Amino acid sequence: MSHVRLTNVVIASWPRGWERGARLCSGVRVGADLARGTEAGVVSLVKPLSSLTTFRRSMASLSEQEKILTGENVYSNLQRMEYAVRGPLLIRALEIEKELQRGVKKPFTEVIKANVGDAHAMGQKPITFLRQVLALTVTPELLDDPRYPEDAKNRARAILGGCKGGSVGSYSESAGIELIRKHVAQYIQERDGIPCDYQNVILSGGASDGIKSVLKLFNEKINGKPSGVLIPIPQYPLYSATLAEFGLAQVGYYLNEENKWSLDISELERALAEGKKTSNPRVLVVINPGNPTGQVLTRSNIEDIIRFAHKHRLFLLADEVYQDNIYDKESSFHAVKKVMMEMGAPYSKMELASFMSISKGYMGECGIRGGYSEIVNMDPAVMAILLKSISAMLCPTVLGQVAMDVVTNPPKPNEPSYKQFIEEKNATLQSLAERSRLVVDTLNSIPGFKANPAMGAMYVFPQFELPAKAIEAAKAEGKSPDVFYAFKLLEATGICVIAGSGFGQKPGTYHFRTTILPQKDKIKTMLNSLKEFHIQFLKEYS
Amino acid sequence: MSHVRLTNVVIASWPRGWERGARLCSGVRVGADLARGTEAGVVSLVKPLSSLTTFRRSMASLSEQEKILTGENVYSNLQRMEYAVRGPLLIRALEIEKELQRGVKKPFTEVIKANVGDAHAMGQKPITFLRQVLALTVTPELLDDPRYPEDAKNRARAILGGCKGGSVGSYSESAGIELIRKHVAQYIQERDGIPCDYQNVILSGGASDGIKSVLKLFNEKINGKPSGVLIPIPQYPLYSATLAEFGLAQVGYYLNEENKWSLDISELERALAEGKKTSNPRVLVVINPGNPTGQVLTRSNIEDIIRFAHKHRLFLLADEVYQDNIYDKESSFHAVKKVMMEMGAPYSKMELASFMSISKGYMGECGIRGGYSEIVNMDPAVMAILLKSISAMLCPTVLGQVAMDVVTNPPKPNEPSYKQFIEEKNATLQSLAERSRLVVDTLNSIPGFKANPAMGAMYVFPQFELPAKAIEAAKAEGKSPDVFYAFKLLEATGICVIAGSGFGQKPGTYHFRTTILPQKDKIKTMLNSLKEFHIQFLKEYS
Repeated sequence: MSHVRLTNVVIASWPRGWERGARLCSGVRVGADLARGTEAGVVSLVKPLSSLTTFRRSMASLSEQEKILTGENVYSNLQRMEYAVRGPLLIRALEIEKELQRGVKKPFTEVIKANVGDAHAMGQKPITFLRQVLALTVTPELLDDPRYPEDAKNRARAILGGCKGGSVGSYSESAGIELIRKHVAQYIQERDGIPCDYQNVILSGGASDGIKSVLKLFNEKINGKPSGVLIPIPQYPLYSATLAEFGLAQVGYYLNEENKWSLDISELERALAEGKKTSNPRVLVVINPGNPTGQVLTRSNIEDIIRFAHKHRLFLLADEVYQDNIYDKESSFHAVKKVMMEMGAPYSKMELASFMSISKGYMGECGIRGGYSEIVNMDPAVMAILLKSISAMLCPTVLGQVAMDVVTNPPKPNEPSYKQFIEEKNATLQSLAERSRLVVDTLNSIPGFKANPAMGAMYVFPQFELPAKAIEAAKAEGKSPDVFYAFKLLEATGICVIAGSGFGQKPGTYHFRTTILPQKDKIKTMLNSLKEFHIQFLKEYS
Repeated sequence: MSHVRLTNVVIASWPRGWERGARLCSGVRVGADLARGTEAGVVSLVKPLSSLTTFRRSMASLSEQEKILTGENVYSNLQRMEYAVRGPLLIRALEIEKELQRGVKKPFTEVIKANVGDAHAMGQKPITFLRQVLALTVTPELLDDPRYPEDAKNRARAILGGCKGGSVGSYSESAGIELIRKHVAQYIQERDGIPCDYQNVILSGGASDGIKSVLKLFNEKINGKPSGVLIPIPQYPLYSATLAEFGLAQVGYYLNEENKWSLDISELERALAEGKKTSNPRVLVVINPGNPTGQVLTRSNIEDIIRFAHKHRLFLLADEVYQDNIYDKESSFHAVKKVMMEMGAPYSKMELASFMSISKGYMGECGIRGGYSEIVNMDPAVMAILLKSISAMLCPTVLGQVAMDVVTNPPKPNEPSYKQFIEEKNATLQSLAERSRLVVDTLNSIPGFKANPAMGAMYVFPQFELPAKAIEAAKAEGKSPDVFYAFKLLEATGICVIAGSGFGQKPGTYHFRTTILPQKDKIKTMLNSLKEFHIQFLKEYS
């Protein structure tokens, strides 16, 4: 057989696999286990078919048995998991972007991705000092360049000294470069006034990575029941997705929307009692400042939460990635560890993991992927297993670690880069605070909208009323009403928000999450466009 | 209560958790489920205790029940998993490094980490062009710098054009930046002469990440039995670790050491029959070039493997991260995909995932973390689930993607950086080839050592004989003989290799894996030192 002929055979047979996808989206057959949400995912994978005839012909020759791995026998936990922030709405938004590029006429000129806390994507500028240190570690020849300030060079030299062979291209220890772990520990210690041992600090490729590593430890069934994890509702969907993936039980507690999304202990008690029916509740997740809700917990609220966790023997998991993002002048950030330690024994002995990221705050370096976990009071036998479990992945990206070094070891007042660093940091945080107020105020001026103030974080999660006719129309399309609304908004305005059902909400209420990240002019346009859309929507469905 | 007093309370109670670790390493109590290997891990976590009295006093006040998460109830799959490349030997090597730093006298002055394929750590220089493109994407102001070549600038401009907001600090799509996926597809297509659709390419934070994502899909028990995954023995321990973590069944097939570690189909048949007793074998892993064995599969061998996989309905998983590392002049790299496609139907319709990394080859950018998976003929419903499953982790590091872009879209002959790029690439590969021969020849000159030629990859996996007395001494210490040997070697010479039992070996045979990565002078010193050690060892235990 000649080479050419073989290649031809390949080309002839190769696109068949794709065509099976078309069955899913054109409704010929939808796998029983395929969640509705994933259909859109399939759509994006499918190549356009030239004609339905071709499509039907190829179907006839293809039996289900041909594939080893199918929608029916794939890991069911992954079938079940959903991650709304990157779900069907975003997939459609990306398609619309391509349609715009192809010149398809739309009532708008660009898609505004308010779905994800992605600051640089929305025009936020990187922190100069952070990028300088990164560039110096990537190309150490720049250490001779007089245009780079000495403090950036000193940081880079110290980090390279901690890299094997003096290169960011060598693996670090799995828990991260020791020097950077020490800087993180020093940062936490100064933040809290409480000792922090660098050996409790594990660097990771983003906070999500750290959170998953810790939740994985609980993946053991005890007396046939899975571990239960208490998470706020609304929650950040990393939690629901990870619990589904690991087969852990999600035990939701509602935040109190009527009281600025505060956390009520009585609701924790209710949720725990409910969770005990089907699981062994072992973990309590607190997101502070809140995502998607933007609430900032008071110190006394955190004390109550700690007492509750102690009483019920819950491992505390504190998602504190928005600790720099506090906009409400009455509020401040209280680390769960600090509060727990200051409460003294027995609370100071409780097990806790807290998480931080380079993706949020004032730096917004999402794409670089960096984070840390601080693991407090963990059984050393478990800590050894945690360290072992991350070792097969070798190490988190060293450049993410470098960025985390800058975040935890920023320029000091006597250093040359201090002034610019502080100006950039403050300007970003100041602007985020202004935009958070702008978003909340504008949303509250729309008929039927009610938004709590964004005390912190990067999102607003307004509640809005939907007319009965819209709810009926959504049902007719097999969509939940908030998802129906979000799709309509996207198609009409190019604004991509995430429907509340992706985060969880009380039954019968409708929300979406929008970021406050588009730059000032764009966010004004976006809000006006949203307002107009909503008024039009109400007319259409009233 | 005053703040100061509370802080004191904390300090008094805080180190207790650590002291429990001391129980584990001082032998007071070792958790039944704690694998022996992890003890050393615990040692490294423990702070030195001021006195045993303090230690015993604190023990009395601490009951097992205090911890929520313990060595007994932690996820048992993680308890079981081992990753020898970063196990107790490396932990001890890192301790020895610290002892040397503290001035502890040793018969050597430095630890040589021949345990891991970490080229830059061993003095290999980064590829200039790759680092230039990285620096330009990190600090786009450098795009105006005349010292950077135009082709590097063009790459950087194109990549930044594919980043949202023009910043590597924004999230990419979960499967990676479209432009870079297209470059990867183009690279594969040119390599194989077979079409490659960029939508089949998923970028990842290193190949390990991609491999785990695909293996996870098989994590469904069918008729109560786990999926079986055929892996070579010896194997790269990512596989044994991942299978243990996911609860998949490891079905080992032995490579034929007598015939240059070749892969015999009769052995595959034997292993499969064995595997069927306890699992549903669904996946066949091929590592080519081999890790730790360095074998390069012939084309006809690959054809046989493909026929075997087709006959038994096995999903092919091709770990091809060493595709650039071929040293044997008689051998060349044949991608499983290319062979499968050229064989025509029905083989060309088989499901396959193949993996590549920026950590190996001539670039050795381990710390940056970049890799890709090419997913061929996957059921679109499964592909949608795979994409969904990686979305909760948001995206692989964008800078790892940038490095992968350079690897798959290197300077072209007419571009200004071409000459230097090719010189650097060839010099590195040439030097690796020389060192591979040096290592093999020297090992074969040691009494009782037998090493196959390293046809490719970055390792040699010699077999060596151990005297009966050494085997007894190992048993007395509760170590397997090869681990005993590797520890002795480490303590005597500072050379850190990984014992063969971490990779798997035929019972009664002893091996270790060493990299060929130390630079030429250092590798000579290392080999001499190893030879002297072995002769001394034989004397001591004869």
